[in-house]
Amino acid sequence: MAKNGSAPTMKDVAREAGVALGTVSKVMNGIPVGEDYRRRVQRAAEKLGYQVNNYARGLKTNRTCTAALIIPSLSHPFFSALAHEVCQALTARGYRMIPFVTDFDPQAEQECIRMIRQNKVDGAIGLTYNPNLEVDPELPFVTIDRYFSATVPCVASDNFGGGQLAAEKLLERGCRRLAFLRTGSPVPGEVDKRGDGFEVYCRSRGVEVESLRLNDEDGMEPFARFLREHLEESRLTIDGIFCSTDRLAYEIQKLLEQMGLRVPEDVQLIGYDGMRKFGDADLYCSTIAQPVRKIAETTVDILLKEDRNQLPAMVCLPVTYLPGGTTREPPEKG
Amino acid sequence: MAKNGSAPTMKDVAREAGVALGTVSKVMNGIPVGEDYRRRVQRAAEKLGYQVNNYARGLKTNRTCTAALIIPSLSHPFFSALAHEVCQALTARGYRMIPFVTDFDPQAEQECIRMIRQNKVDGAIGLTYNPNLEVDPELPFVTIDRYFSATVPCVASDNFGGGQLAAEKLLERGCRRLAFLRTGSPVPGEVDKRGDGFEVYCRSRGVEVESLRLNDEDGMEPFARFLREHLEESRLTIDGIFCSTDRLAYEIQKLLEQMGLRVPEDVQLIGYDGMRKFGDADLYCSTIAQPVRKIAETTVDILLKEDRNQLPAMVCLPVTYLPGGTTREPPEKG
Repeated sequence: MAKNGSAPTMKDVAREAGVALGTVSKVMNGIPVGEDYRRRVQRAAEKLGYQVNNYARGLKTNRTCTAALIIPSLSHPFFSALAHEVCQALTARGYRMIPFVTDFDPQAEQECIRMIRQNKVDGAIGLTYNPNLEVDPELPFVTIDRYFSATVPCVASDNFGGGQLAAEKLLERGCRRLAFLRTGSPVPGEVDKRGDGFEVYCRSRGVEVESLRLNDEDGMEPFARFLREHLEESRLTIDGIFCSTDRLAYEIQKLLEQMGLRVPEDVQLIGYDGMRKFGDADLYCSTIAQPVRKIAETTVDILLKEDRNQLPAMVCLPVTYLPGGTTREPPEKG
Repeated sequence: MAKNGSAPTMKDVAREAGVALGTVSKVMNGIPVGEDYRRRVQRAAEKLGYQVNNYARGLKTNRTCTAALIIPSLSHPFFSALAHEVCQALTARGYRMIPFVTDFDPQAEQECIRMIRQNKVDGAIGLTYNPNLEVDPELPFVTIDRYFSATVPCVASDNFGGGQLAAEKLLERGCRRLAFLRTGSPVPGEVDKRGDGFEVYCRSRGVEVESLRLNDEDGMEPFARFLREHLEESRLTIDGIFCSTDRLAYEIQKLLEQMGLRVPEDVQLIGYDGMRKFGDADLYCSTIAQPVRKIAETTVDILLKEDRNQLPAMVCLPVTYLPGGTTREPPEKG
């Protein structure tokens, strides 16, 4: 502790280390100084129990070491997994995360941007559904899953490649008549490429494919009708289904079982996301798994990049197929 | 905008509103002024696009309008649901949440307290597993699910009452030989009362009850052995099981089904938490549901209470029984 018993200041650290006040300031703000100086300052700071006041720092260097995360929810599994990994990635880099929960409301998203301005964060990460979202050009901003423009970096899983992979896996497992089912936000986003990749792969192999692309507000009834229309003598004329999310695959499996069809014996199902029960237990279904940690780390690395002139416009991160009980074993090769 | 094109200051607002600078400051900091003054200041601030700089505010009034949440994970369902609701409750009260993820590591939890000191938050909420956690006495702190001492308010679901409710529901549904199974942290906490309430209720009704209380590191094998030991001619001598969490109930159901036993026909199961698949879809099992939103709101209200001399030591919030497929219908009364 400093001699007078109150919290030690940078001046106390400088005195203890026998260096100039400016040197302490540089070390505390991560500005390079000689290695010997850096060590002396750190040793003195530790000895005195010196604590950086991040708010004072925010004013003086214009850095707050906080980043905002704009996200629809912290409780839905994909968003919570992403928030968890973004928080960990920021913490590892000496940053705090401030989450802003929007509940998919475009107005709330715009309101977040206003609040972020007040909070003087160093940057923001957004998983947003407002097609007209206005972001301050001077605020470092990285978007996840929805491409804004070439000047705003976007990070996503390889949605197109994931759709292709789903088609490949279903065909390898003997499927011959495929369908793509989609629900979600009506706002266009990167996730729409899941179906595109799936259809392109099927067509390139001359395989028949049908698509039903709906939005959340359409509910499940149109999917039930679609399935009933494909029943012939209590057998489904489709034998492989790719769903745009694990959640949809879970609901479709329930519909199929209500119709007396067995998964995966009668029809095979693949979802997208790689969600697990209780966050880390069994998969819900066979799935194209998103690399959530890698998405978070890449996003944070781009956000904190010093050179703002060298930012990628779009980064797609590789996905993996994971069997989760709704697909059959592929036939042995040989 | 202010005349010179740069961001407007409080002075600009005072000039525009025709009031003293001190009046603007009072309005911005929520200190009461005459209603007419308040309106004039707000109208001027809106007109000029004046933004409060929360960091400057943090230094001047010693308030940062941020609260820390110390939590093991943001991705496990109960924690993510809680973080979501805490974030919403804080936002509704004009506060930001800064989550600190500890991954159940007692050292990381203590490190959080150190970081929180640096970040000068107004208070902290902790869901912690460090029995020796040292919290600054001057930092407003509310703990969830683990009681520290009479001077640190603790909020939890009514764990004891939940255990009693589970016993009541199983007995109503015809169970006669009950068991309580527990896994989790070895650190004592409020959640231990789930089993206590269950056993007390059973004994008060003269019903036989066995308990197996383990920790996470013991794994599932001791539970499998326990179940095998209670098999007699491929029937289980136990007909009702209360598990300390939904997650454990899910794993126990899998074990029972592997042993050829049917849930709920041969044995009924109740979990605790009220977790749902994908965060908001079907329950995993019949369960004693925690009032997660109410827990979050109560915690935040206590944290932000102005009068620190009137804090409750312990608040237990009521739980509900939800049928989720692992219990039978109760027999008709009449």
